[in-house]
Amino acid sequence: MSTIIRNGTVVNADQTFRADIYCENGKIVAIGPDLDVPSSAEIIDASGQYVMPGGIDPHTHMQLPFMGTVATDDFFTGTAAGLAGGNTTIIDFVIPAPQESLLDAYKKWREWAEKSAADYSFHVAITWWDDSVAADMETLVKEYGVNSFKHFMAYKNAIMADDETLVKSFRRCMELGAMPTVHAENGELVFQLQQELLSKGITGPEGHPLSRPPIVEGEAANRAIQIAQVMDVPIYIVHVSCKESLEAITRARNEGQRVYGECLAGHLVIDDSVYRNESFEFAAAHVMSPPFRSSEHQSALWKGIQGGNLHTTATDHCAFCADQKAAGKDDFSKIPNGTAGVEDRMAVLWDEGVNSGKLTMNEFVSVTSTNAAKIFNIYPQKGSISVGADADIVVWDPEGTRTISAKTHHQNVDFNIFEGKTVKGIPTHTISRGKTVWANGQLNVEQGAGRYINRPAFNPV
Amino acid sequence: MSTIIRNGTVVNADQTFRADIYCENGKIVAIGPDLDVPSSAEIIDASGQYVMPGGIDPHTHMQLPFMGTVATDDFFTGTAAGLAGGNTTIIDFVIPAPQESLLDAYKKWREWAEKSAADYSFHVAITWWDDSVAADMETLVKEYGVNSFKHFMAYKNAIMADDETLVKSFRRCMELGAMPTVHAENGELVFQLQQELLSKGITGPEGHPLSRPPIVEGEAANRAIQIAQVMDVPIYIVHVSCKESLEAITRARNEGQRVYGECLAGHLVIDDSVYRNESFEFAAAHVMSPPFRSSEHQSALWKGIQGGNLHTTATDHCAFCADQKAAGKDDFSKIPNGTAGVEDRMAVLWDEGVNSGKLTMNEFVSVTSTNAAKIFNIYPQKGSISVGADADIVVWDPEGTRTISAKTHHQNVDFNIFEGKTVKGIPTHTISRGKTVWANGQLNVEQGAGRYINRPAFNPV
Amino acid sequence: MSTIIRNGTVVNADQTFRADIYCENGKIVAIGPDLDVPSSAEIIDASGQYVMPGGIDPHTHMQLPFMGTVATDDFFTGTAAGLAGGNTTIIDFVIPAPQESLLDAYKKWREWAEKSAADYSFHVAITWWDDSVAADMETLVKEYGVNSFKHFMAYKNAIMADDETLVKSFRRCMELGAMPTVHAENGELVFQLQQELLSKGITGPEGHPLSRPPIVEGEAANRAIQIAQVMDVPIYIVHVSCKESLEAITRARNEGQRVYGECLAGHLVIDDSVYRNESFEFAAAHVMSPPFRSSEHQSALWKGIQGGNLHTTATDHCAFCADQKAAGKDDFSKIPNGTAGVEDRMAVLWDEGVNSGKLTMNEFVSVTSTNAAKIFNIYPQKGSISVGADADIVVWDPEGTRTISAKTHHQNVDFNIFEGKTVKGIPTHTISRGKTVWANGQLNVEQGAGRYINRPAFNPV
Amino acid sequence: MSTIIRNGTVVNADQTFRADIYCENGKIVAIGPDLDVPSSAEIIDASGQYVMPGGIDPHTHMQLPFMGTVATDDFFTGTAAGLAGGNTTIIDFVIPAPQESLLDAYKKWREWAEKSAADYSFHVAITWWDDSVAADMETLVKEYGVNSFKHFMAYKNAIMADDETLVKSFRRCMELGAMPTVHAENGELVFQLQQELLSKGITGPEGHPLSRPPIVEGEAANRAIQIAQVMDVPIYIVHVSCKESLEAITRARNEGQRVYGECLAGHLVIDDSVYRNESFEFAAAHVMSPPFRSSEHQSALWKGIQGGNLHTTATDHCAFCADQKAAGKDDFSKIPNGTAGVEDRMAVLWDEGVNSGKLTMNEFVSVTSTNAAKIFNIYPQKGSISVGADADIVVWDPEGTRTISAKTHHQNVDFNIFEGKTVKGIPTHTISRGKTVWANGQLNVEQGAGRYINRPAFNPV
Ligand SMILES: [Zn+2]
Ligand SMILES: [Zn+2]
Ligand SMILES: [Zn+2]
Ligand SMILES: [Zn+2]
Ligand SMILES: [Zn+2]
Ligand SMILES: [Zn+2]
Ligand SMILES: [Zn+2]
Ligand SMILES: [Zn+2]
Repeated sequence: MSTIIRNGTVVNADQTFRADIYCENGKIVAIGPDLDVPSSAEIIDASGQYVMPGGIDPHTHMQLPFMGTVATDDFFTGTAAGLAGGNTTIIDFVIPAPQESLLDAYKKWREWAEKSAADYSFHVAITWWDDSVAADMETLVKEYGVNSFKHFMAYKNAIMADDETLVKSFRRCMELGAMPTVHAENGELVFQLQQELLSKGITGPEGHPLSRPPIVEGEAANRAIQIAQVMDVPIYIVHVSCKESLEAITRARNEGQRVYGECLAGHLVIDDSVYRNESFEFAAAHVMSPPFRSSEHQSALWKGIQGGNLHTTATDHCAFCADQKAAGKDDFSKIPNGTAGVEDRMAVLWDEGVNSGKLTMNEFVSVTSTNAAKIFNIYPQKGSISVGADADIVVWDPEGTRTISAKTHHQNVDFNIFEGKTVKGIPTHTISRGKTVWANGQLNVEQGAGRYINRPAFNPV
Repeated sequence: MSTIIRNGTVVNADQTFRADIYCENGKIVAIGPDLDVPSSAEIIDASGQYVMPGGIDPHTHMQLPFMGTVATDDFFTGTAAGLAGGNTTIIDFVIPAPQESLLDAYKKWREWAEKSAADYSFHVAITWWDDSVAADMETLVKEYGVNSFKHFMAYKNAIMADDETLVKSFRRCMELGAMPTVHAENGELVFQLQQELLSKGITGPEGHPLSRPPIVEGEAANRAIQIAQVMDVPIYIVHVSCKESLEAITRARNEGQRVYGECLAGHLVIDDSVYRNESFEFAAAHVMSPPFRSSEHQSALWKGIQGGNLHTTATDHCAFCADQKAAGKDDFSKIPNGTAGVEDRMAVLWDEGVNSGKLTMNEFVSVTSTNAAKIFNIYPQKGSISVGADADIVVWDPEGTRTISAKTHHQNVDFNIFEGKTVKGIPTHTISRGKTVWANGQLNVEQGAGRYINRPAFNPV
Repeated sequence: MSTIIRNGTVVNADQTFRADIYCENGKIVAIGPDLDVPSSAEIIDASGQYVMPGGIDPHTHMQLPFMGTVATDDFFTGTAAGLAGGNTTIIDFVIPAPQESLLDAYKKWREWAEKSAADYSFHVAITWWDDSVAADMETLVKEYGVNSFKHFMAYKNAIMADDETLVKSFRRCMELGAMPTVHAENGELVFQLQQELLSKGITGPEGHPLSRPPIVEGEAANRAIQIAQVMDVPIYIVHVSCKESLEAITRARNEGQRVYGECLAGHLVIDDSVYRNESFEFAAAHVMSPPFRSSEHQSALWKGIQGGNLHTTATDHCAFCADQKAAGKDDFSKIPNGTAGVEDRMAVLWDEGVNSGKLTMNEFVSVTSTNAAKIFNIYPQKGSISVGADADIVVWDPEGTRTISAKTHHQNVDFNIFEGKTVKGIPTHTISRGKTVWANGQLNVEQGAGRYINRPAFNPV
Repeated sequence: MSTIIRNGTVVNADQTFRADIYCENGKIVAIGPDLDVPSSAEIIDASGQYVMPGGIDPHTHMQLPFMGTVATDDFFTGTAAGLAGGNTTIIDFVIPAPQESLLDAYKKWREWAEKSAADYSFHVAITWWDDSVAADMETLVKEYGVNSFKHFMAYKNAIMADDETLVKSFRRCMELGAMPTVHAENGELVFQLQQELLSKGITGPEGHPLSRPPIVEGEAANRAIQIAQVMDVPIYIVHVSCKESLEAITRARNEGQRVYGECLAGHLVIDDSVYRNESFEFAAAHVMSPPFRSSEHQSALWKGIQGGNLHTTATDHCAFCADQKAAGKDDFSKIPNGTAGVEDRMAVLWDEGVNSGKLTMNEFVSVTSTNAAKIFNIYPQKGSISVGADADIVVWDPEGTRTISAKTHHQNVDFNIFEGKTVKGIPTHTISRGKTVWANGQLNVEQGAGRYINRPAFNPV
């Protein structure tokens, strides 16, 4: 199987140039002007289009069991939807229950993911601590291609990691050459505020953001970063949603600390007025943590990307339908937390970022693909149009438009937080490991075509 | 008993002027030029001297049971030494053991303090949490004149308050009109670092500062401040020793939050080279928490005072002798934490602050007396030379000098962290509740002369 | 003439207490409960009211010749309106034309001000530089009671001071013990932007804020502060309107530098939407420099006051009527810059600051009166309810209301930027030098009753 | 002419990998394992070594006429010395005298540079302003490959650009797609301080840093950045030497502004104690502007590099010998400003940066080469080991050592500011446009071998 993309303009994180791209057996094997290729090669004409590394969404939760239900997009439907949107790799999360063996959980998730249509990898969450956890971390790093561990600082009485766990796990990450990551919200404050709000009779979705104000996130981000500094390990903060946590990152980076920040497409463009919508269904559909924020925070996040203090964009894709969200009809704290978006991230970023002049095309590639590959140590296999890289490519039509809607999207969920938004700039073709899986609006995916991506530990060369 | 101070220059926090001061029955009753007073009045000639409010040390630990021993300065010797240094009030700490009743502990400390030579009051520590603690807090505020509660974020497995306790206690303080205060160090990090250092064979006092780096303090200060912000209550950070925690305070104040910072005379002038001294005795004598810091931090603290981000100066006076310090001969984590200084604070501040031009005299009065009185709601009874105020006065000779030494100090301890320092600017007279208790180098104090100072809750007028 | 204010609650910057106040011959002579006074004394019953130091507006321009016209409130009407609003002192500006003798200009303004109904003092502007300017500065300080000099960093081709002038004048201020103050806007940028906007056909008042964006102010404030730091002199920034200049002040203060900031009542509550009003008259009536800003800046200014980074509130009172504003009908850069407000400042600050809980009453007194008195060295003569102080007092009814309107105000101008705003909290009585000049809505003022206030240089006691 | 570098580890800004590099006709034509190449190819064995893009020094002054003399390294000796140190490109400065035609000056410098041994390009300084300057800027951009213009904010009465010039020139840069750059020091403050110091009798080199304190640089950097922001153009700050200017950059970048910072090898490792050396010759040899700073600034600069707020490293290479420096024997302000270093920059950065763990090898490549190429728009022709790039390559031996000394260096000057420093990590081979010009300590350069590098304007693709 070979494919040639002709007449396009290649956009990498570091440069833009005109060239043809030739792929064979899932790899990019030649880049250059007017390449001479076998006549059997499939030809994609990219005239007037940009040819970019396929997107990497470093934060998804396919078929996650959570809050008494299971996310509706599974590894097949979720990765397929991603491909329709130009996204060729996801990094999902293994989340062991407290006391559950990390290895057991890891194997369970690997099994679930076998049907993936696109490539995938896993962060593993540290939700409890004892010596076996420390031992399993080593096994995961050395034998299973895991180089990042996630810590939830919220969700008290469930998967919350306390300071003792953070301190010990971060130290272990340092020893193993792994990257600690955190969901940064102070779980004690969230819990206290939830109790107070509910006791005051505030039970609807409007209570959700009130129970998780920006300071709650800023405090936790700062704490995790400082612990990482003392433990001498880099750190990655997932879904930075507000200026308070961005400032914590920024302060640390200004001191030279190796801190990385991720933000979500949703947080960049949706504000907290959604929670005051009179429709429970609409408001509940937006319940995720951290919540959407007031508009000043969106402006801050864009500046964070521009200034290099935020590095990746993700979705925290975790799809729940209206009937699942209804579990919190009388108590906002019971609404399953999660929104979808793996299909829309790239287009939203291009439309709001590149079209507005906020980001250059090269920066777009950096924050949708390359930086994630570098931070999680799979560059240049992923995140790069270069000879030898995986043939994960998106052909982008800057003039094409699409109106996002749950009615037409490929995600297996009945709601779209970007509903009605018309984006300019869409993928005409997505190539995954050399195979054209999305072309001019047609999806041509296959269960199990995706492969697990080993991510090696960080070590000196 | 009446006293007239003639010919001096009065220095208050807000102004400087020439006037005589007349005191009767423990109160200031007249201020003005050439006051006409009964001939029976004791006359103090303050020509060429400054007449200022007596010092308030808002952070002392007299006869504290701690780390298996008891601090050597008791309420009599400690307050007497304070009077020799121009300090007329202390605010000490009631520290209940976990599970101990707050009221029981409070009463115990009140009893210990009855022998005090000068006025005193108490912060009460929250070292554990249940409903009885919440109830006792109310009783202490409403019936016992307590308006501040202390939280130790360090000392894991002993008196450390976790986030849940902080959140609940801060909320309770808000409800009661009380001020939460914190000892800000991340106890989990300290504990982890102690274990690591000891396991590496670092057992001497040089391990003490290594186990408590500035970030450990900065993180905790930031966390406490953010929790206070969410709980909608002001907060006071004790013994700010480094720029990291000062910056946390400064950031919050710049956002308009009501945050107050205290720093210690020792932290302003002593650097961390003391821990590298080859004498165990010398190094151990400096073991306190937070530890002394490198010189950049001292410079930052002075700027914090100048810029109004630090408000009070204290000593954390907690005296231990060499034989007590020896308990940590083989393990720095067992050295009783504490240093003395209640006698020296005023002179050190004047010498290093006023003589150097860093502080005006009015600022000196603010940070040694007036601000503490305001923050803990006993102004203008204390902290002010004004009609109606308590006659707690220091007469200050800006030309007088003293060489500080354990050989000559009045503190009941065998070491002085300011040993050998010659200060210019000393008290010639200290008047406590109208009685001249220190005059020209002679101490004339009485057990039990001091009274307990009720501090009312913060309420609208 | 003597007056007793009975039954009120005295609010000073540092404390609140119940007491009567007795005034004689223009001074406060007694403060205390149930004072025994001559039966001839006028009695003011302040039951349920607050008794506070009269306001000090440190920034007014009465009858200023500016941009081809003259401000309509003269020293009599302007000070009278101030008294109606509880303001008992103004500090106005002597503004010599380039090459004009400072002393000549000073004497001209002194003559103009003789008709003032309330006390007044003068800052003197440095609009050019040569040796005679340096010499006149010394004369003004030593013989004429001037301790502050103003520098306009904007108004190119008119009164703008370039960096050379700033450097030399600041150094001279240091030598003389005087306070440099600046109007901080980068005049080169303003000029360039004005030219560009006019050349694009943007000639209406909406061009005014576009030509003076916040960065233009922030840059100048930072520059002036840094020059002051190098020249080793404190500095006072007038009319801080935006977070950019507030941040410059805050950064410097955090470093311990002695920097003071003033903000205007108008900038605290009015946003820049006024310039987009379709009525030229309305929009032009709001043209002043720096312009009103978007709402995020108002929020920042309040935080600046709360955090102690802004110290005084003023008005920049400079009244122009509609026919004068019409001079810029076809060119926004020709609209006379200025708005009124000396009558409204105190009530607006109380209503928006104290009623909202942003400020305590003591802070209100600090920022409307006491801090200005301290910074410009007339405390406690002004800015204090204390024995010996000038009897400049306002009796404040926290329940009283007034709807602000040009129809009813006492200012000699046909527009009020606070038009229609109903404030809760108003002066029932204003006492100026012991005389009741405003009582229950009646003004009883006299031309020439005000006196010039000498302000001594800053020197060690 | 063709060359193959075998067995090395290629280090680019974005990745590290093992590969051979084959160069032909001055270009890199193949990269890969075990390349098959013509037997005629020169073979360099890079076993155990790193193969990196040749250095780019974006700030040199070869044979500059300055302060009454001429820099001693000309374009031949200077570029040759650079090659000996692994530096294959310089960007020098055309500095027209006020009133001199930009084009005339440009042509003069081009002529001087024809003898260069390595590639070179030119920034052009804007030292005055009128319409002809604006016109010449356009010509230089469109016809002569200039895309950056330099502005000196210091050197009053010589080449200093005032605010009016900055505003107009920055606007012109925006229109032309050019990058403004600034030497940031407030020239008025420097001038005033020089006069004051000299008048106090401080005439020796110790007066140099006293006349240029860090704030003087910080103020100017902030001003230039703010002007750039208002004029809507990116900006590049040359030779950032202190935390004050770094903070100005950092603040702006945190707001998303496109600001770039350069720092010098010397400022990273040398402190201001050099000016207090008793030898005039030694102290004067270190006189450059901005001066060397106290050690806290060096620490801040390293953090600036690590945090991505400083982007390039340079030398400001401007060589003056002792006899030239002697011109300021009696007046520090007459000492020709300048130090050398083009030969030493790469090794100093490696030794202090990479060996210490402060920088990764990839970051080393970024800040010594790639970032300069990107910022000045010659990437990937320069700054990259990639097919199609210029064959400007350095082969680096991480185990090799050299003790830097004026006795052995190739720079044409009698002093070396790094004298006696032993660096570990040195170039074994330097390849310039495909020719091996430095091999194992032997320099094999040729006058005129270097070519002028056109730098295109910044335009959308
Ligand atoms: Zn999360
Ligand atoms: Zn998640
Ligand atoms: Zn403590
Ligand atoms: Zn303590
Ligand atoms: Zn002004
Ligand atoms: Zn004004
Ligand atoms: Zn320079
Ligand atoms: Zn230079």
